[in-house]
This record gives sequence, structure tokens and C-alpha cells, in this order.
Amino acid sequence: MKRPLQISVVGAGSADSNLYKLAKEVGEQIALRGGVLVCGGLGGVMEAACRGASEAGGLTVGILPGPEAKEANPWVGVIIPTGIGHARNVLVAQSGDVVIALPGERGTMSEIAIALKTGRPVIGVRAWGDIEGVEVEVDAKNAVAKAFEFAGGER
Amino acid sequence: MKRPLQISVVGAGSADSNLYKLAKEVGEQIALRGGVLVCGGLGGVMEAACRGASEAGGLTVGILPGPEAKEANPWVGVIIPTGIGHARNVLVAQSGDVVIALPGERGTMSEIAIALKTGRPVIGVRAWGDIEGVEVEVDAKNAVAKAFEFAGGER
Amino acid sequence: MKRPLQISVVGAGSADSNLYKLAKEVGEQIALRGGVLVCGGLGGVMEAACRGASEAGGLTVGILPGPEAKEANPWVGVIIPTGIGHARNVLVAQSGDVVIALPGERGTMSEIAIALKTGRPVIGVRAWGDIEGVEVEVDAKNAVAKAFEFAGGER
Amino acid sequence: MKRPLQISVVGAGSADSNLYKLAKEVGEQIALRGGVLVCGGLGGVMEAACRGASEAGGLTVGILPGPEAKEANPWVGVIIPTGIGHARNVLVAQSGDVVIALPGERGTMSEIAIALKTGRPVIGVRAWGDIEGVEVEVDAKNAVAKAFEFAGGER
Repeated sequence: MKRPLQISVVGAGSADSNLYKLAKEVGEQIALRGGVLVCGGLGGVMEAACRGASEAGGLTVGILPGPEAKEANPWVGVIIPTGIGHARNVLVAQSGDVVIALPGERGTMSEIAIALKTGRPVIGVRAWGDIEGVEVEVDAKNAVAKAFEFAGGER
Repeated sequence: MKRPLQISVVGAGSADSNLYKLAKEVGEQIALRGGVLVCGGLGGVMEAACRGASEAGGLTVGILPGPEAKEANPWVGVIIPTGIGHARNVLVAQSGDVVIALPGERGTMSEIAIALKTGRPVIGVRAWGDIEGVEVEVDAKNAVAKAFEFAGGER
Repeated sequence: MKRPLQISVVGAGSADSNLYKLAKEVGEQIALRGGVLVCGGLGGVMEAACRGASEAGGLTVGILPGPEAKEANPWVGVIIPTGIGHARNVLVAQSGDVVIALPGERGTMSEIAIALKTGRPVIGVRAWGDIEGVEVEVDAKNAVAKAFEFAGGER
Repeated sequence: MKRPLQISVVGAGSADSNLYKLAKEVGEQIALRGGVLVCGGLGGVMEAACRGASEAGGLTVGILPGPEAKEANPWVGVIIPTGIGHARNVLVAQSGDVVIALPGERGTMSEIAIALKTGRPVIGVRAWGDIEGVEVEVDAKNAVAKAFEFAGGER
């Protein structure tokens, strides 16, 4: 039995229209290739990625910081209402076979740090090139292609 | 948009053939009604329930105590490798709109306690009648029917 | 180097005057014997036990569910503001070499379950005799004496 | 009642003699000023800081990733054996009124990110000047002095 690739998408909890569009494309590309999208389940990059994946027919998972399922954005399919606050960032990072990092702030940085520490490949999209170990791509399609390439042999 | 009901199944990490059969039926019934099965992702009751749901075409989620996806039983569809040890029991309990509890030990008891504390209905199957607040059913079909009935109006 | 015994005290988050007095005596006895009191850091049994220990010159540790140190009761010496919600119950249980359980509800039950699962002795005080593996004592002095006896040889 | 300042010290889990000496001085300075030292409880920077604080008569707290108290270094006074793995980094960051960051790797980066996200001042010692929001000092004495200055008014 072969399970689908899980890709965690991390990034800012709020997004202007450019960032929202980029994150939506990342989600869409993941779904089109048959991946499962994992994220923090809230707004901004998380919502846009879920929306893109969901509208393309893909499965989305939201690992929420709070204990209430209703906090999830409307495009989350499976909801994990952890109640463990910022510690849920560690679970988001670890639940990806690969992590795709869009522009974000401290929370996103913590997720990248844990992903790298636990040996996950991290692909930045137009961001995070200053952190050693992050591979940067310029658009959604290439980022997701690289994610599948990196994870290809390992499950 | 209406997401499917999430039902957490908790119980012993090892199972004799009777308990395995019962847990498999619970998983199967959940899938047949369109629910998502959430569990701890390991062996025994968790494996049997995942197997029953998966073979009936349903989606299964395994919230693992360890940080490695490969610990999951083969019938887990979405893997959350938390690395948070016994604290993952809290997440299993909270990720169900309803919790179905099969025979088990201390770990199962901790999940029932958290589910009740956070206001989830808990349905015991041939067990846990000694904990106030647990409704006991005698077979898989009735337990899952009651789970859907309890959760019916609330999402 | 020999560190002092750590004793976790668990019980209800609110307490009538009888329960408050009992918990305060438990805290006091722990401090008089040189133990460190660990608890959930909030009100009721937790507050009373911290107060008893603190007023007797002992060290107290509060492992809070929320992320804010100010939620701690005033008799907590060392504050761990976890932000992990109910999952902090697991840490309270695991941080005791022994666990003393006073009357409480579901949260307390989850702590007892985890303590037993992870091999800690659990001493109930006027409660929890219905859970297999819990030793019940009738007063604070005997409960704390038994806690030190149980943990005596193991660090 | 005024509790002592809690200062979290984060940094690499292994240390050469220069880094060990620096971390030991940080611990010592914290103890001399009456602060409580919080850290991850393991080796390297964590051990050196605990040792410095403990030998100067201060209280030390180790928030361990694993569930076993015996993993703590010998200079930890209060042991929190969380069993929550890398998620314990979030607790280390949040348990400091201020965070002092010595040279380290990804784990340390995750702690700095969470500390900044949750509004704690972060003081780097000979490191982390590339992360916006970190104030860098060149020696232990100045770093600890600044930590007390930053936290001065807020408890």
C-alpha cells in the first residue's frame, strides 16, 4: 500500500492579494499531483493553500493551535484541533514529507527550523534564502515539482 | 461547505481476535456512513479500525506518539507524526466530533477523560460503563449509529 | 548530587473549605519533608497545595495550560506557561516521581491514567479507590509519608 | 509576593571549551542576580549554564524532550520530563521572562523564533545578530545585566 505524499505548506497568517494568489497556486499544484496538503489550518497562506488544493479536488489537513474545530478555514478537510498553541508548529513541520515555505514571520521561521532539524527538505518560494539549507524557487509550479522530486524515493 | 464527521476510535494497542474483529467493524461502519476515522495510528484496536475503514473505502487519520511516519499501521491514510508522546492522546480525543471507546487500558482511560472534559460525547463498546458520562452499546453498528446521532446537529 | 523528590499533586480546580484544607496539608507535608511540589498551577487543589508548601518554606512548580505566567496562583514559585492546554496534564503526571491524587474530575482522571501508564505510583487521598493501581490513604500526613516511602529507593 | 525572574538560556546541545565557558558564566551571572535559570536540561550549553548557576547557588529548571528524568544533566534542580520532543522548545522559550541565546543550530533558532513571536526579549551572546529583533551582547555579564534590565518592570 502506497500512501500519497504529504506536503506541509507554511507561511504568514495574513496575506495580500499577491501572496494569496501564490499560496493558492501552491495548493493547487500539490492537489494536481496527488499530494495531501498539510498546514496550520488558519488564514492567510494557510487558507489560500487549502483553497487552491480543495478546489482542485485535493485533500487538506489543518493542524490548529486552538482546541476548537470551528477555527479552521473553510477549505480544511481534516481538522486536528490540537489546543497546544505554538507547539503545533512542530507538528505541522513534522507532518510533511517535504515542507514548502512561503513568506512569513517568526512562526514560519520556527517551522522551517524544526523541519530542517528533523531532516525534512525545505523549499522556499520567493523567501527564506537566508536560512542555510532552504532551497529557493521562484514560482509555485517549480516549488511543488521540486518537492515531489525531493521526496520521490523516500517513502 | 460541509465537512464529514470525524470520529475518534480509542482502545488497546494490542487486540485478540474478538477485539480486532469488533474494532474492524467499528471502522467499517464509520466509513460506510461517510465519516473520517481518527485514531492513534498504531496497532491493536487502532490498526483494526483503520483496516476496517480503509477496506470500506473510508479516510483514516493516525495521530502518532512518535516523530516517524513509518510507525503508522499500513491502513493509516493521513499520518500526523507528533513526537509528543502520551500528550498525543489529548489530540486524538479532541479531533473527534464524537469518541468511540473500545476495551483498553490507562491510555484509553486518559483519552476518555479528556473527551468528556472537553464536551465530546463518548460511546463505549462493551466497556467503560463504570465511567460516568459514557454511553455503552453492545455492538459496532449501534455504536456508530449513536455516534452519528449524537453529532448530527452540531457541525 | 542528589536532587529532591518531586511530587505531583493533582485534583479539582475548585475546592470547598474541607478540600482546600486537605490539599494545603498535603503541600505542607511535602515541603516539611524536603520535597518539591509540582502541580497544574491554577486554583482549588493546586492553589491550596502550593500555598501549604510555600508557607512551609518549600519549592513549588506550576505547569500551566495557558501561555501566560500571570495565570499562576500566587504561591507558585517556578512557572512553566506551556500553552499546550489539556496536554499539560501529561507533563504534570510525568513530572512527579510520585503522584498524589485528591478529589477531582475528568482532568484529574486523565493525570492519574497517564501516571499509572508511565509507571508512577499514585496515592489517592480520600478518592480514586475505584481505579485499579491507586493506593488510597485517609489523610495528608499518611499520603505524603507513603509517597516518600514508594519513591525512596528509586532516584 | 514577588517571584524571581526566570531566564531561559538556549544554545547548542554540544559545546567546545570556549562555548562551555561562556555558557557557564551566563548561568553563574543569572544565579548571582537571583534569577531562576530555565533550559532544555540536556548537554552542551544547557549543561554548562546549569552548572554555572548551580555552583553559584542558583535554582535551575530543565525542560526535557524525553519522558525520563534521568536524561537531565546533573546540574538540573527541577526536572520537567515532557516527552513532547521538539515541541518542548516552545515551552523553554515561553518559560523565560527573557531569553538569552548562545550559539546553536536549528533547535536554538526555533526557540528564538517562538520567543520573539510571543513577545519575549531575546539577547544573543556572540550570535544571532542576523535575526531581526535579537539584541547582541559580547559577554556573559553584559547579556545577563541586559536581561534583568529588559525584564525589570514587567512582572
